[in-house]
Amino acid sequence: MKVSIIGATGYTGSELLRILFSHPEVEIANITSESQTGGNITDAYPHLAGCYDKKLTSMKDLSQFTDSQAVFIGLPHGHAMSIGKQLADQGIKVIDLGADYRFRDESVYEAWYKVPHTHLNSGAVYGLTELYREQIRAASIVGNAGCYTTASILALAPLAKYHLIDMKNIVVDAKSGVSGAGRGLSLNTHFTEMSENLKAYNIGGHRHTPEIEQALQELAGQEAIISFTPHLIPMARGILSTCYATLKEGVTPEAIDQAFYEMYGQEYFIRLLGRGGYPATKHTRGSNFCDLGWHIDTRTNRVVVVSAIDNLVKGAAGQAVQNFNVMFGLNETSGLKQVALYP
Amino acid sequence: MKVSIIGATGYTGSELLRILFSHPEVEIANITSESQTGGNITDAYPHLAGCYDKKLTSMKDLSQFTDSQAVFIGLPHGHAMSIGKQLADQGIKVIDLGADYRFRDESVYEAWYKVPHTHLNSGAVYGLTELYREQIRAASIVGNAGCYTTASILALAPLAKYHLIDMKNIVVDAKSGVSGAGRGLSLNTHFTEMSENLKAYNIGGHRHTPEIEQALQELAGQEAIISFTPHLIPMARGILSTCYATLKEGVTPEAIDQAFYEMYGQEYFIRLLGRGGYPATKHTRGSNFCDLGWHIDTRTNRVVVVSAIDNLVKGAAGQAVQNFNVMFGLNETSGLKQVALYP
Amino acid sequence: MKVSIIGATGYTGSELLRILFSHPEVEIANITSESQTGGNITDAYPHLAGCYDKKLTSMKDLSQFTDSQAVFIGLPHGHAMSIGKQLADQGIKVIDLGADYRFRDESVYEAWYKVPHTHLNSGAVYGLTELYREQIRAASIVGNAGCYTTASILALAPLAKYHLIDMKNIVVDAKSGVSGAGRGLSLNTHFTEMSENLKAYNIGGHRHTPEIEQALQELAGQEAIISFTPHLIPMARGILSTCYATLKEGVTPEAIDQAFYEMYGQEYFIRLLGRGGYPATKHTRGSNFCDLGWHIDTRTNRVVVVSAIDNLVKGAAGQAVQNFNVMFGLNETSGLKQVALYP
Amino acid sequence: MKVSIIGATGYTGSELLRILFSHPEVEIANITSESQTGGNITDAYPHLAGCYDKKLTSMKDLSQFTDSQAVFIGLPHGHAMSIGKQLADQGIKVIDLGADYRFRDESVYEAWYKVPHTHLNSGAVYGLTELYREQIRAASIVGNAGCYTTASILALAPLAKYHLIDMKNIVVDAKSGVSGAGRGLSLNTHFTEMSENLKAYNIGGHRHTPEIEQALQELAGQEAIISFTPHLIPMARGILSTCYATLKEGVTPEAIDQAFYEMYGQEYFIRLLGRGGYPATKHTRGSNFCDLGWHIDTRTNRVVVVSAIDNLVKGAAGQAVQNFNVMFGLNETSGLKQVALYP
Repeated sequence: MKVSIIGATGYTGSELLRILFSHPEVEIANITSESQTGGNITDAYPHLAGCYDKKLTSMKDLSQFTDSQAVFIGLPHGHAMSIGKQLADQGIKVIDLGADYRFRDESVYEAWYKVPHTHLNSGAVYGLTELYREQIRAASIVGNAGCYTTASILALAPLAKYHLIDMKNIVVDAKSGVSGAGRGLSLNTHFTEMSENLKAYNIGGHRHTPEIEQALQELAGQEAIISFTPHLIPMARGILSTCYATLKEGVTPEAIDQAFYEMYGQEYFIRLLGRGGYPATKHTRGSNFCDLGWHIDTRTNRVVVVSAIDNLVKGAAGQAVQNFNVMFGLNETSGLKQVALYP
Repeated sequence: MKVSIIGATGYTGSELLRILFSHPEVEIANITSESQTGGNITDAYPHLAGCYDKKLTSMKDLSQFTDSQAVFIGLPHGHAMSIGKQLADQGIKVIDLGADYRFRDESVYEAWYKVPHTHLNSGAVYGLTELYREQIRAASIVGNAGCYTTASILALAPLAKYHLIDMKNIVVDAKSGVSGAGRGLSLNTHFTEMSENLKAYNIGGHRHTPEIEQALQELAGQEAIISFTPHLIPMARGILSTCYATLKEGVTPEAIDQAFYEMYGQEYFIRLLGRGGYPATKHTRGSNFCDLGWHIDTRTNRVVVVSAIDNLVKGAAGQAVQNFNVMFGLNETSGLKQVALYP
Repeated sequence: MKVSIIGATGYTGSELLRILFSHPEVEIANITSESQTGGNITDAYPHLAGCYDKKLTSMKDLSQFTDSQAVFIGLPHGHAMSIGKQLADQGIKVIDLGADYRFRDESVYEAWYKVPHTHLNSGAVYGLTELYREQIRAASIVGNAGCYTTASILALAPLAKYHLIDMKNIVVDAKSGVSGAGRGLSLNTHFTEMSENLKAYNIGGHRHTPEIEQALQELAGQEAIISFTPHLIPMARGILSTCYATLKEGVTPEAIDQAFYEMYGQEYFIRLLGRGGYPATKHTRGSNFCDLGWHIDTRTNRVVVVSAIDNLVKGAAGQAVQNFNVMFGLNETSGLKQVALYP
Repeated sequence: MKVSIIGATGYTGSELLRILFSHPEVEIANITSESQTGGNITDAYPHLAGCYDKKLTSMKDLSQFTDSQAVFIGLPHGHAMSIGKQLADQGIKVIDLGADYRFRDESVYEAWYKVPHTHLNSGAVYGLTELYREQIRAASIVGNAGCYTTASILALAPLAKYHLIDMKNIVVDAKSGVSGAGRGLSLNTHFTEMSENLKAYNIGGHRHTPEIEQALQELAGQEAIISFTPHLIPMARGILSTCYATLKEGVTPEAIDQAFYEMYGQEYFIRLLGRGGYPATKHTRGSNFCDLGWHIDTRTNRVVVVSAIDNLVKGAAGQAVQNFNVMFGLNETSGLKQVALYP
């Protein structure tokens, strides 16, 4: 099967190349970059030397994708809609790693992202595999779930689905490695400023908030309101999401346990560390696993769920490949059975 | 003035030595270590060479402290009570950097620390300078506030004092550099395991929880219950505490602002970054500052306060010296007017 | 093919498990640990959960290895000789990742390692694949090359082989990530002490020195003497070796280039960055690649070669699997075609 | 005494502000920035809040410096000469932290820096305090020594001065924290690219090379030729310089020891760790100390000297203040008696 990558020089693009290199059924057709058109991908990413030797094209030439069965898009939000529509119209399946296709209600997208949505009624399916697998199987366009959102939704989904918590009183305190901020330069992500440093940002206003709320609402069948705070951590990869929710009256610890095991017991990529378990981001680094542990605090009547993922894998490129596998009826773990790189 | 340090080879001990080296009115009399008695402090800490050249004694010989006007104690909890009592009985002022003297109600101490308290009615004052300055001025024994607690209480105190939040629905998500775990070796703090890693620990059970609740209760005049989660961050120093509280009905953003400026407007060591401000731990590194920023999330009706300190300075040795200055009527900033080490 | 790992709970053991998980022709028979016998490998390494679920046995029961065609040994030096001999006597092929089988002349081993060698005339072959491939093909025992040595020998080999440098005036300044010091706890490798820190150790006395000299001597056909200095760098993985040699009279830059391309032009795992190229450890992280760049300094008449590897892969477990593949006539890259984990 | 800083928003500028804050005899008159003229220094460096509250001016208005007794210049090379000349002509003493005034022979400067020197015969003195103290005392202009050069020259000076080594066969392998690359953004210093990474750069061509050679030549009274290789290390601060030299015939270890103790025995800022000693950068962080250890390798007839400094303190702003103290007859350690920030 031939696939292409639009926007290959961002971190999600290079991570797709890393993962697809081990995918037994995939061949890379074209990879694009508007800023480095004509250059070789190994100039942008020397670590790919010996594995890839491929020129970057411009995405503007649509004809290059005709023999691709799927196209992964790794562009800033607002830029995938247009090309996504053209590709879908040609019958090419699209997995967009940005935000354009993540919202069922495009007005939510427009409110948080401040751009008009130009591909309404696209039929796009939200790409959080474990929750939307059946719809993804039939989808033409998948809006791959975001990094913070994947970690946070997977942590809270069983509690929402089985109606165990107050949906109006949820706090999600999430921490991300710096690769989440991308490859663009900024003082915030300058090594000397960020090493041995730690800070929050975008409190109450981060765009992953409505994504988390959308998924939890659909699971719970009622409105969900969360306080979401992202933080930058002095490491390259990994997200840890610490999620606080108030237990409904009468909910027992056993009921909590059961919800997690019922929902995820058969999921290859979700590792349940159990009640009292402590995920660590490094245990997932480079892998597509999401680790979950949960804690009942009887003093405060809260459940605290902690989830860990690699933001570039389960939070981006890995889940994109997982969705791709589902869309094409391949083994869901193809290309993704890698042990985490530890230590 | 002569002062001594009991337990000088832990990180708080060496940090006391760093700070007191610049204190114009202090001379170090004796420094003790039970495990390295007879050795030189520069063997334990080569970075002190050229600044100190001093043998470590055993704390068992109490007579060595008779010419010290104050003794700083840096021992594991449960070990300060006994020597603290003996020193106080001799009229020597004590600043304990551990937990033994932090609780007004010793039964709370006993419940969380699982050891009987043997120095009841000590008259100890809780050593969070900005909140208890007047009592500290007259104290014989100060139980220096903990690191997570200093960051968290300072963040929430104005909201508690001015009755702006629901005291039963508070979440404190705190993140600490690895020096908070001390100099003792463990796999958790092995470089190779902890670099590029991130995890939570002791959810719902960390011993700084009752300390935070005690202070907030006294400020609010009513019971406070918090969910507290500590995390280990791959950096050596610094604590960032992200505190979530629900606003009482009718509380305006301006009322929040006013509470912070009224309470802290005159405090040298508290830097108010204002509404919308984002503290970063590295801006406080090596200094005694606590940086505060707050955010109103009208969607969720929450206020989120973020505080940053250096856990070994304002969270330990720096605040101990600040308390010492207050106890002896010195300028409160003596020895502490250092610019943070940035970058 | 069944293989076993003796000493599976060190970093090289867990790295072998990571790599062999992707090896299409290998099944893990037994894994041993004397300190954690009876435990599950996922207790020691939670990142292996979902990939392995296997009890650790004691290596003392030799019968467990009878159905293994090869055994990897990851024990401290001095401990592999005895069990290596027993396994070899039973016709099981041995790849030892320690130092016991690295020296052609056992007296050199005894002089540097201060233990008597008890398995003389073992017929062991030195396991630096690119240099000893033909002998490895026929070997029963391979003494896998060390981490510093692999990086340093590969950097200097073309210069030695083609007689381009003065073999008596070589300086190797090598820098290693902290995982090279193993999983054993020490103050040196405590996170808080080693983060933001940098130091040299064992100057003139590191045991990888004679290994480098042995290989270079065999290539050059004359004595080689090097000054070797190892350094600890605040990162988990990676070795950078900066090698300085004086050019023989009349040696041109083109002759240097030619030596590298002739020797390594066909090697999959050696990536030649060319004259003026700058390897970076992170470009090799998690992969079996060795990156090489070289520089001619005409002012000083020196050639400076820089090499980068992942110390746990090409410097240990990866090269062990490469040697294993060669020993059994498999494709040399089996299990090793992984893109580096970047960033 | 009033002093000003031209180019205050670079790391050396902010470090000068940190150090001078504790200097008992200095008051900051003006601080300049061409890119941020009119802004407050705390906007550029929030960690200075509470310590400074000062607007940035443009250096173009020379009249602002008339009441300054000294001006520190922290500009890119080529930019200090012009303003330095104007200030010196007005009788204001100048300490330039860049390269413009470091070379006795301006043609060497022109050859390595590729710009014409426009302030010939300035009478500038090279600002490595321990070596040029007497000339600095009388100087109007000091060309403060560079970071790599300070570490490397101090390591080799006793060997050169007492004629113990072959001056034509020296290798200096130096490693620097990323702050040495400044605050300007680049992919090389992007956190995600540089964390857990390590590389060499500018082999054989780094501009600190002729500076090191100049000083060693003056000490030895003969030509010195060194191979110099700088490396970037994943930490913010610190330089470790590993220096290799061949011993002259008959030189004993004791002669080496004696050279170091004779030359540096009375120097406050040089800490001799002795033969066999291992400096670590973190022991000097935030302080003006230079730590030295040396090793005799009898196998190779080499002496290996290791030096550690904080590149922003002894390698830049700290030494600048030390030079300033000497120029004005103040106590040489004024403002500089700080314990390193450890851990």
